[in-house]
Amino acid sequence: MALRPKFDPQSHNLDKKFRLTKYTGLHGGGCKVPNDVLVKLLQELGANPYHDEQYMGGMIMPRLGIGLDCCVIPLRFGGLSLLQTTDFFYPLIDDPYMMGKIACANVLSDLYAIGVTECDNMLMLLGVSSKFTEKERDTVIPLMIHGFKDSAEEAGTSINGGQTVLNPWCLIGGVATTVCQQNEFIMPDNAVPGDVLVLTKPLGTQVACNSHQWLEQRNDKWNRIKLVVSEDEVEKAYHDAMFNMARLNRTAAQLMHTFNSHGATDVTGFGILGHAANLAKQQRSEVNFVIHNLPCIAKMAAIAKACGNMFGLLQGTSAETSGGLLICLPREQAAKFCAEIKKVEGNQAWIIGIVEAGNRTARIIEKPRVIEVQTLEDGTVQSVPPTSTPRRTIKPSVIEQQKAMLPEIQTQPNNNLQQHQQTQQVTNIIHSVQQPQVMQQQAPSVTLLTPVTMHEQVQQVIVQDPQQYQHHQQMQQFQNHHQ
Amino acid sequence: MALRPKFDPQSHNLDKKFRLTKYTGLHGGGCKVPNDVLVKLLQELGANPYHDEQYMGGMIMPRLGIGLDCCVIPLRFGGLSLLQTTDFFYPLIDDPYMMGKIACANVLSDLYAIGVTECDNMLMLLGVSSKFTEKERDTVIPLMIHGFKDSAEEAGTSINGGQTVLNPWCLIGGVATTVCQQNEFIMPDNAVPGDVLVLTKPLGTQVACNSHQWLEQRNDKWNRIKLVVSEDEVEKAYHDAMFNMARLNRTAAQLMHTFNSHGATDVTGFGILGHAANLAKQQRSEVNFVIHNLPCIAKMAAIAKACGNMFGLLQGTSAETSGGLLICLPREQAAKFCAEIKKVEGNQAWIIGIVEAGNRTARIIEKPRVIEVQTLEDGTVQSVPPTSTPRRTIKPSVIEQQKAMLPEIQTQPNNNLQQHQQTQQVTNIIHSVQQPQVMQQQAPSVTLLTPVTMHEQVQQVIVQDPQQYQHHQQMQQFQNHHQ
Repeated sequence: MALRPKFDPQSHNLDKKFRLTKYTGLHGGGCKVPNDVLVKLLQELGANPYHDEQYMGGMIMPRLGIGLDCCVIPLRFGGLSLLQTTDFFYPLIDDPYMMGKIACANVLSDLYAIGVTECDNMLMLLGVSSKFTEKERDTVIPLMIHGFKDSAEEAGTSINGGQTVLNPWCLIGGVATTVCQQNEFIMPDNAVPGDVLVLTKPLGTQVACNSHQWLEQRNDKWNRIKLVVSEDEVEKAYHDAMFNMARLNRTAAQLMHTFNSHGATDVTGFGILGHAANLAKQQRSEVNFVIHNLPCIAKMAAIAKACGNMFGLLQGTSAETSGGLLICLPREQAAKFCAEIKKVEGNQAWIIGIVEAGNRTARIIEKPRVIEVQTLEDGTVQSVPPTSTPRRTIKPSVIEQQKAMLPEIQTQPNNNLQQHQQTQQVTNIIHSVQQPQVMQQQAPSVTLLTPVTMHEQVQQVIVQDPQQYQHHQQMQQFQNHHQ
Repeated sequence: MALRPKFDPQSHNLDKKFRLTKYTGLHGGGCKVPNDVLVKLLQELGANPYHDEQYMGGMIMPRLGIGLDCCVIPLRFGGLSLLQTTDFFYPLIDDPYMMGKIACANVLSDLYAIGVTECDNMLMLLGVSSKFTEKERDTVIPLMIHGFKDSAEEAGTSINGGQTVLNPWCLIGGVATTVCQQNEFIMPDNAVPGDVLVLTKPLGTQVACNSHQWLEQRNDKWNRIKLVVSEDEVEKAYHDAMFNMARLNRTAAQLMHTFNSHGATDVTGFGILGHAANLAKQQRSEVNFVIHNLPCIAKMAAIAKACGNMFGLLQGTSAETSGGLLICLPREQAAKFCAEIKKVEGNQAWIIGIVEAGNRTARIIEKPRVIEVQTLEDGTVQSVPPTSTPRRTIKPSVIEQQKAMLPEIQTQPNNNLQQHQQTQQVTNIIHSVQQPQVMQQQAPSVTLLTPVTMHEQVQQVIVQDPQQYQHHQQMQQFQNHHQ
């Protein structure tokens, strides 16, 4: 997908102030009912608390005794199962076509998380805002449908049925269903100590969408974050978020089979940590998931910090919409998985953590490594190569750069031994990867600082892939073009 | 189901003024986007207009080229098809538990309409009103879920998955899915001239719910309709509507196979005529559907008339929620179907019209016969036997009563010949039925009158079934009990 021009209401004969995101009070994954409330409300269903917590994403699976992103119903026809999932939400971006694409990609993602690559049918769920003028309705809704349909086609499925209602808030979503044999899906409960966690899309979609809205409104929050981010950077992040949310996780689902995945989930409303915790709970082995790296849309970590704990991005609780798959892979397969997804799609995936023996929980290490991620002009998603020197950045020496490649823990020997060992594990895994593009997972460490001084501390990575320089140059051109 | 006590907010520690129906601006089937608007909006999907019109109920079926209440997707596994449907809407009654039951029955009805009797999985869709207090939320939502779950269990299925969001309006619905073989469902496109149309639930749910709201509010509309209906009659109709909406059409779906149905649809947001027209359009043979009888919840016709054309009940356009199945049956099977459903469920079904050669449209005859229907204390749904003499009714002579058994057309020889012939057909069919309970379809003709004078014209039917007198007496007792 090439860079998409910003949605221009006037080119559709709408008022220049028309914003799709105004037709809702809650956005994207943020519309979910809080987890603890949901557990209480869904007790009526009689599922156990673990399942209830996962109900929101269509995750209850009492018949098989574990929770999933989509339900798996054994059918009475030899060996076949019915797998299905539903999701719907409200606009979180202003481009109706892209909103339709995102809604479709988001629903499909639950099927992809269980390793299903073919969707037999899609139902589309539409809420037409009762506050739309007739003109707005007749412009916006067909664009949304068009986007939804295009993504369905990209996924090799089609829309046959649905429901359309009037609603105060504009609403879009769907139901994805497939019937398949046992070997066509991957139960997400086989993680074992020693496995590695891979993430297929960067985090920060909520931060990107919100900060874009603040920029448009030039409100107090914008005044706060503009100290750490430029308008162009926010526009770029918004575009990247939109682009990433619209991406299908289909290649990842295919490669889960190739590289013997032990299970996966998709990252949405609960944030990376919430979904990691849900996945951990479902494991048959007594394991913990430990997250060391947080690939984020470029500059979103800086914004999140400038906003205090508002988003919880670095705490792993910032809501994502149509996020990546979080995949458990055998250690020896993880790098190959990342290399292959890069080969097929052009996009990077990141090793972000490890599976260790534990009590089925998930955590993020105290100072996770933030990997800055951008979408290049060719449409591929990559870790940020050494870009223009950040304002007031002290250029680190080569030795410092190399230090930056290692987990922070190595320069902070006073931290506890366990954390050190875990981090060492990740370091070893990452260092064992020969492909330079996977090496780029080694993004600069971002430590917790006040907004104003943060840039001063940003360190740069060594880019070992000449091709990456080319991407970098293209991106620079793109940025110049848009400045 | 025995008579259910009215929902009492205070017994749940809610404010006595709490009304679930206040948490929406549109109710039940009335939330649908108008048909013509939807056709325009859904053009993006590329389906032809016929399919688009039926999309709302999940009716698009491009792969097989015809529209259905649920989609039918051929699977890659020998002879199996995926059938699924979705529907969701807003509260139209104040009892949360019953609202949950209705939402579930309503979704299942689309599967039943295609002759499917087993649902493999149900997804539940929930919108928690953002205007609920915490107490209201924690009381109302579990009750709704409980009702939804109970209906799913009654249908022999279970809820595995769904989505829960916050929304200004309270929202509930689901997705019903089944995988089955060719002989397990009945394509709704085989009607032939000479077939008979049967309806399995009375009409008038919207009229009943609205008039109940007017009664509570004692507003201008109540002042208008109270001239033709008592408070008790409105309360009773509201209860009956709730009861009928919560009934499953599952027995009807089973009997569609037994009695060789040529196709069916369920009656919801477009009213009986709208859904009959949709069904007619899908037929392979060149047929018309002609409706002669309108079974209505008792007193709803009187209210509809008192309100002018506001509802369109007698015009067949009043929205229904979780209505009956409208079933095409071979003429010789229709009465047997009605007798069998009565035997199995205790509930009446009604022969309401005929299939004739035509151009795939549907119509209601100029002066359709209104059949007054009530739910008895034993929970069965029946045509009203001769009740207490209506106020200011002129009791017709026996000859007049017999005339009333025949379609109006026979006493209006100036009407066109075609209509006469059609009506004669229905008369013949009905007269060929030997079971007295089916004879009771011959309800009094209600002609279009001003509200005040209407009762004067109501004629009474001859009841030929002694058992019916018993029902009548039971009902009288019930009425006395509740007065």
